[in-house]
Amino acid sequence: MLEARRIKHCRVCGGATQYLIPADDNRHRAVCTVCGEVHYENPLNVVGTVPVWGDQVLLCRRNIEPRYGMWTLPAGFMELGETTAEGALRETVEEAGARVEMQGLFSMLNVVRAGQVHLFYRARLEDINFDPGPETIEAQLFHEHQIPWEQLAFRTVRDTLKFYFADRAAGQFGLHVGDIG
Amino acid sequence: MLEARRIKHCRVCGGATQYLIPADDNRHRAVCTVCGEVHYENPLNVVGTVPVWGDQVLLCRRNIEPRYGMWTLPAGFMELGETTAEGALRETVEEAGARVEMQGLFSMLNVVRAGQVHLFYRARLEDINFDPGPETIEAQLFHEHQIPWEQLAFRTVRDTLKFYFADRAAGQFGLHVGDIG
Repeated sequence: MLEARRIKHCRVCGGATQYLIPADDNRHRAVCTVCGEVHYENPLNVVGTVPVWGDQVLLCRRNIEPRYGMWTLPAGFMELGETTAEGALRETVEEAGARVEMQGLFSMLNVVRAGQVHLFYRARLEDINFDPGPETIEAQLFHEHQIPWEQLAFRTVRDTLKFYFADRAAGQFGLHVGDIG
Repeated sequence: MLEARRIKHCRVCGGATQYLIPADDNRHRAVCTVCGEVHYENPLNVVGTVPVWGDQVLLCRRNIEPRYGMWTLPAGFMELGETTAEGALRETVEEAGARVEMQGLFSMLNVVRAGQVHLFYRARLEDINFDPGPETIEAQLFHEHQIPWEQLAFRTVRDTLKFYFADRAAGQFGLHVGDIG
């Protein structure tokens, strides 16, 4: 996944780049062999929600790769011009066609190998008329005992759901910070 | 700041890009007019610490632009291959030459106009022998009444310090989530 981001040409002039450690730096960067522009590559945020209706949680079945056909919480890459919470709300609308009231930040999970940080907010569903977008096959509510644990798309989704049900049982929701591989 | 990231050439083939909304998307992206590669631009994380020695906090005076000569908490862009906490620790070593024991996540502040999310951790200084790197003019400990509020480099630094002293006075440290312009 990290490899896919490799930069072969300069975004400013189109010249060929070379990976080297710039004079004032300590990491390899794609540096343009023509104009000298330095290209930085950094982790990205994935933002989403745990949408809840009573004691049920909303999951979406993925209509896209990776993990086509598997279940996920609504989430996606944070975009420029929005906050983490706004991005999480947008993804919930886009992927599930669901209306939610946003609640607190619930999990922040580093996925180092993917170069990602996953942030999930708790959210209260305002109704159960879902209208999934093109990235979703179906959106469905699950009681805890119905969660398809073996068909979840991502480990951060599994961990966040585990945290959610544990906190719910304990009667208090906290913030869960963790690292994955 | 967002403008500076504009992508004029394709990173894969070097061809000219054009900003348009791809068929399966709803935002303008830099799309290569030659090979069709779509280039995404997303917010970046800035990670840092609030390094504490007794009732003093460590600040660094910036030796680089922007905000040359102003004071900041040690912080910088999160890099690939590290967690948010590892990045915050690395920046503390690089900018202040300080040894710290990392503590909990303390603030998460969206800076929408800059396309950034700032994350600060509390950290306990293990000694007070600082060895600032080239990005720092000097590193200095401040009691609360000595903080140079008018010479702080960034609003997220000011807000995080305000939260820190308020929580300390209250006897309990929480997580502070907020948005800035």
